[in-house]
Amino acid sequence: MTDPFLDSCRAIVGAAFVLDQPHDMAPFLTDWRGRFTGSARAVLRPQDTAQVALLVQACAAHRVPIVPQGGNTGLVLGSVPDDTGTAVVLSLARLNQVRAIDTVNRTVTVDAGAILHTVQQAAAAHKLLFPLSLAAEGSCTIGGNLSTNAGGTAVLRYGNTRELCLGLEVVTPQGDVWDGLRALRKDNTGYDLRDLMIGAEGTLGIITGAVMKLFPAPRATITALVALDSARNALALLGLVQDACGATLTGFELMSSVCLELVATHFPQLPRPFTAPHAQYVLLELSSSESEENAVRLLESAIGSAVDQELCDDAVVATSLAQSRGLWNIREHIPLAQAAAGKNIKHDVSLPISRIADFIDVTDAALLAAYPDSQVICFGHLGDGNLHYNVAPRDGASHDAFLANQAGINRIVNDNVAEMHGSISAEHGIGALKRDDLVRYKEPVELNMMRAIKAALDPLGIMNPGKVL
Amino acid sequence: MTDPFLDSCRAIVGAAFVLDQPHDMAPFLTDWRGRFTGSARAVLRPQDTAQVALLVQACAAHRVPIVPQGGNTGLVLGSVPDDTGTAVVLSLARLNQVRAIDTVNRTVTVDAGAILHTVQQAAAAHKLLFPLSLAAEGSCTIGGNLSTNAGGTAVLRYGNTRELCLGLEVVTPQGDVWDGLRALRKDNTGYDLRDLMIGAEGTLGIITGAVMKLFPAPRATITALVALDSARNALALLGLVQDACGATLTGFELMSSVCLELVATHFPQLPRPFTAPHAQYVLLELSSSESEENAVRLLESAIGSAVDQELCDDAVVATSLAQSRGLWNIREHIPLAQAAAGKNIKHDVSLPISRIADFIDVTDAALLAAYPDSQVICFGHLGDGNLHYNVAPRDGASHDAFLANQAGINRIVNDNVAEMHGSISAEHGIGALKRDDLVRYKEPVELNMMRAIKAALDPLGIMNPGKVL
Repeated sequence: MTDPFLDSCRAIVGAAFVLDQPHDMAPFLTDWRGRFTGSARAVLRPQDTAQVALLVQACAAHRVPIVPQGGNTGLVLGSVPDDTGTAVVLSLARLNQVRAIDTVNRTVTVDAGAILHTVQQAAAAHKLLFPLSLAAEGSCTIGGNLSTNAGGTAVLRYGNTRELCLGLEVVTPQGDVWDGLRALRKDNTGYDLRDLMIGAEGTLGIITGAVMKLFPAPRATITALVALDSARNALALLGLVQDACGATLTGFELMSSVCLELVATHFPQLPRPFTAPHAQYVLLELSSSESEENAVRLLESAIGSAVDQELCDDAVVATSLAQSRGLWNIREHIPLAQAAAGKNIKHDVSLPISRIADFIDVTDAALLAAYPDSQVICFGHLGDGNLHYNVAPRDGASHDAFLANQAGINRIVNDNVAEMHGSISAEHGIGALKRDDLVRYKEPVELNMMRAIKAALDPLGIMNPGKVL
Repeated sequence: MTDPFLDSCRAIVGAAFVLDQPHDMAPFLTDWRGRFTGSARAVLRPQDTAQVALLVQACAAHRVPIVPQGGNTGLVLGSVPDDTGTAVVLSLARLNQVRAIDTVNRTVTVDAGAILHTVQQAAAAHKLLFPLSLAAEGSCTIGGNLSTNAGGTAVLRYGNTRELCLGLEVVTPQGDVWDGLRALRKDNTGYDLRDLMIGAEGTLGIITGAVMKLFPAPRATITALVALDSARNALALLGLVQDACGATLTGFELMSSVCLELVATHFPQLPRPFTAPHAQYVLLELSSSESEENAVRLLESAIGSAVDQELCDDAVVATSLAQSRGLWNIREHIPLAQAAAGKNIKHDVSLPISRIADFIDVTDAALLAAYPDSQVICFGHLGDGNLHYNVAPRDGASHDAFLANQAGINRIVNDNVAEMHGSISAEHGIGALKRDDLVRYKEPVELNMMRAIKAALDPLGIMNPGKVL
């Protein structure tokens, strides 16, 4: 049976790179957390930008919807197709080269399908730092990071993926190649199409290449775990450390007592820095461009001031790389400990930093009043105002009964976020998962501008339909 | 004689704030450098966002073009009307309040018409820093800074205006108010309309308010002037200082020998730090969050390494605030010295930093070959890759004969910029002045996307017509 559309795709990329058999397509159709499996007409695997452009032209000619996919590690169902089977998945995985590094301009030019870890390594080979870092870095791609404006653990010092990007190469919904691969710190020649494409989740075009910023690698990094009796004190500590340490501050992660207990239960081999429990903990990281001595001095001085001001109850400073790794391991094992404990309801929210303590107080109280069997597992990038405010059943409560409350729990959390002028998706994006929430919480004026831009750039509506808008 | 459109404007803002007499309108019709005077149907002076929205609705109903205006200090004729007299100037000057400061979130919410210097002072009153700083800061407004994505002297450390903004309030071309006044470091809920509006020069809507980031004020700032024998050595020095000083480096300005001679001739009262001339100079500024001792130590160590590597010939370190001010005065008097010397042809270009020395060599040679009477006055923000590459007649040559060559000189400079993948407008924007250049140097794919967005958001074409596109 001939299919003129698939035949034209085969003519572009070769038959081996047009997958249309179920078992070949399967790895591309299920999302990272395994919550949803879609269906596709085919999976297309181009090897370069020119092939991507030709494939998009073929899709436009045949009105075939396109789902661009990088490492497929997203958390909001943005990179998998729906279940209609009408769309193709266009995988960027074969565009995986680091094209060039300019050590004087401190930039790296990469294919969209380059793995984040590969880019980090390419920078490190020149003693430079590509600061983007997140849990999926061994699998996720730069194109996916850009399309979702990924956050991660270095945002406090270096910004989101958006702030790390100087230029883009994009295949438009018409199949034209826009060469916006500029490597400039300043360029005021017209509309900011770069930032429009970043975070658009593949709905306005396909990112095929990018110029990213590099930074001098810090000479020394030091980590501490600070115990405090409230999130409010953690906020005061943040201000104190920012004033005292400036750009040296590279990490400021909040974790509640429940988080550390959960990690201790499920990963007893990890360090337990304090004998007695405390209400909150802050994982604090400083990175000095000078020396380890400088980092230690700054940290000790900041913690000393915090003790004087009675902001912190106790503190542990890592004196070796292994100890530092151990402290970060506690933080990074929270999601794993949650998974081991059973299902839970996740929220990725942000707030003005000044409202964080209020948000936690008010939302905890509202949730416990409405759902007495619930337990809040709250941690996150406090320095960015970003909380992973997750809700699980209390020990002994039924998981299934609890999960039936998901809509109501989401509503309490998101309503409080909206009330305090926060964001219902701080770093994960909208995808297909939060599309209805977007309509609920975004005002019509903004949604209408978004729709007008979508219609103007993708009039056929073939780019990742059903995502974001 | 009644004019239904102006009557409706008077009903919105009051008759006193609808100026239609030539002498009342005059201050709003001529650009900052006095090169062009346009004509307007009226100048409208609303007092708040609600009035701006109603005025835009009236303009849309009567198809009256709108030229938004802040401090009118732009350099590319973006904030003055053309000479047809059909447009109104909509001045944001009365929206001039600092609405709120959040010292914990480190943000300031301002009206678009707030003067930059006022915002700096508001931050300083809380011991915080609003880092945007540029020559016109006593007159320019935040709305204008945002609409042109202003650069200035702190970009190296803190980024352009774009990087300083978290949220916007915008009146759309339909006269709706988009409340995007978010004060969040992370928000991935849909298209980045904020960055689309920033740098759009009032062609997509009118910015009426903004949330801007604040930073801890540095504890100490230290300045040095370094003499070098080439721009190439200045580039090597930049890399060395970035590695050694990290985020402490807050200024890295290049000035050629000609620049310092020009300043010495026209402003003999200013300091002359070196007795013998050198080919190039770098004004270098470090700002420490720790202490003056820390800044001095970092600077001395960096300059010591530069001397060891034979990158610099001589250096002067300012040991007092007055001396530091004196060094900055040399830099800031270059444009004034140029003005005193007579007319000249200005270019505001950027390049990948690694191409700066090549660009200067190649462009200097091409210009002198084609126009032997010309002299290059090149200075700028080297750390950002931004050069003010100005061209003047050599001493004794006729200014008028020289200026007749403007088109040819622009062409040589801009062609070299394009050849080296630079930008023909690094920080000043496009306005009406560089509109033709944009069409010459921007590829059609990008221009077409810009036009599609313009048509989608402003279908009547009433927002600042004839600017940018």
